Amino acid sequence: MTRIRLDLAYDGTEFSGWAKQPELRTVQGELEAALATIFRTEGDAPVVTVAGRTDVGVHATGQVAHLDLTDTQIADLDRPPRGGSAPRGLGTLVRRLNGIAGAAGDIHVQSATLASEGFDARFSATWRRYEYRIADASALHDPRRRAYEMWHPTVLDDAAMSEAATSLLGLHDFAAFCRPREGATTIRTLQEFAWARDVDGVLVARVQADAFCRSMVRALVGSCLAAGDGRLGVARVAEVRDEQTRGSDFAVAPAKGLTLVGVGYPPAADLVARAAQTRARRAAPASFDPDDGLD
Amino acid sequence: MTRIRLDLAYDGTEFSGWAKQPELRTVQGELEAALATIFRTEGDAPVVTVAGRTDVGVHATGQVAHLDLTDTQIADLDRPPRGGSAPRGLGTLVRRLNGIAGAAGDIHVQSATLASEGFDARFSATWRRYEYRIADASALHDPRRRAYEMWHPTVLDDAAMSEAATSLLGLHDFAAFCRPREGATTIRTLQEFAWARDVDGVLVARVQADAFCRSMVRALVGSCLAAGDGRLGVARVAEVRDEQTRGSDFAVAPAKGLTLVGVGYPPAADLVARAAQTRARRAAPASFDPDDGLD
Repeated sequence: MTRIRLDLAYDGTEFSGWAKQPELRTVQGELEAALATIFRTEGDAPVVTVAGRTDVGVHATGQVAHLDLTDTQIADLDRPPRGGSAPRGLGTLVRRLNGIAGAAGDIHVQSATLASEGFDARFSATWRRYEYRIADASALHDPRRRAYEMWHPTVLDDAAMSEAATSLLGLHDFAAFCRPREGATTIRTLQEFAWARDVDGVLVARVQADAFCRSMVRALVGSCLAAGDGRLGVARVAEVRDEQTRGSDFAVAPAKGLTLVGVGYPPAADLVARAAQTRARRAAPASFDPDDGLD
Repeated sequence: MTRIRLDLAYDGTEFSGWAKQPELRTVQGELEAALATIFRTEGDAPVVTVAGRTDVGVHATGQVAHLDLTDTQIADLDRPPRGGSAPRGLGTLVRRLNGIAGAAGDIHVQSATLASEGFDARFSATWRRYEYRIADASALHDPRRRAYEMWHPTVLDDAAMSEAATSLLGLHDFAAFCRPREGATTIRTLQEFAWARDVDGVLVARVQADAFCRSMVRALVGSCLAAGDGRLGVARVAEVRDEQTRGSDFAVAPAKGLTLVGVGYPPAADLVARAAQTRARRAAPASFDPDDGLD
């Protein structure tokens, strides 16, 4: 088997999230159906493993996934097409995935490359990075971005939002920001969380952690939104985190403003060790899930 | 009558352009229908005059328009709503236009302000500015932008495109880049035309002129695209312009990559003079149309 790394992007609007589900249009479902067509397999088409299982309506520009191909499948890609001189090998895979899974335009595979020894899109990752966009009353509202940002009817206090974000940084139990899951730890390291206005005045959050629990990014954003709107004192934000229970101080921000923009991996030499370490943490009594899913 | 300036943005995808047309969904049509509802008038609702009549599928983030309201209509906006304390005056106009014309999300009125004496959105303007986006094979293809950029299957030579663009700058007869119109001059001043890659590697053109003839921006972009693709020598681009006839050296670029990003006006003291000057040029034998329409 040969492991292939896929770098891909999608507009989450018309998807029921990443993870394959019967009867629903999902990113994984579309990619695996395309692979089944490409390799003319039924039932046992290659499975696509992803770094961040995005929720319904969440977008991605820097998603990373992997799949394993047999020697026969690799040879299939290398076979020159009838009468054509189209790119072969992994170029063929990109072109065909984009022709089938990308036909509607809302999935685009940027590249397919041979994965380094020990690479696992999910278990080798050292960080996931998201962006959240809010156009408040002082920002330009660009209708071209209406499916990719939250529009907020008042002017938000960006200084309060930045202060709230900073107060959440570091290694903490983020239970107050997660949908709980039996036996799973909610301890994470929030490596970056900062708000800045872009050229159009749109508030953009950069949020990076080793991994995120379920609904965590949108809950972090929701807490800052409550602080920026004056509904929640800035000092309360870190207090809420320390109380470690999900209360009603703030709401989870809508999915459409959220985009997974990147995933980080260690140098090739450390990939195997990193995956083993992640798997061990996952098997521990208070299980750490590197991709608890559904941001 | 009181003249109101509107600053607005729209996603052109679902519009048959700016200009009102029977049976078709257009930006002007939607705005004037909303005004008829707001002021409960039929047939003689305020007319909206625009700086740049964009073509089918062209977008705008910095569009400017004006309309004239009677004292009764102004008073109507100032009347407090039943039982409410919503913003009055021009704030009401923005809110109601966005509630009606902007209900589908693809039109957004940024502001409505009292126009300076002599202001005319179309005749006072001194420049129009567009942006054109091309994601070539070396750029990130972001599915969230698929309706707002052209995706090109090969890597384009951006140096050749920049050189071609620079060779077109200045005061020229742009007949080779315009759909001809009887009795109208195609002489324009191309004030800025430059290509640069953004952070995602997407080629973005900034194109500014005193005014544009019909299909001119997309023809300018088409000529650079042919140069960047190696189909047209860079030196040929200025030659084609000097031949002053529309040939088959290049195609007009698709509408969806084009966005009107801004319109410039002189200082308030010069508005009346500017409009008079534009009207005189328009009445001259070789008529200058400040908005020949349909980019």
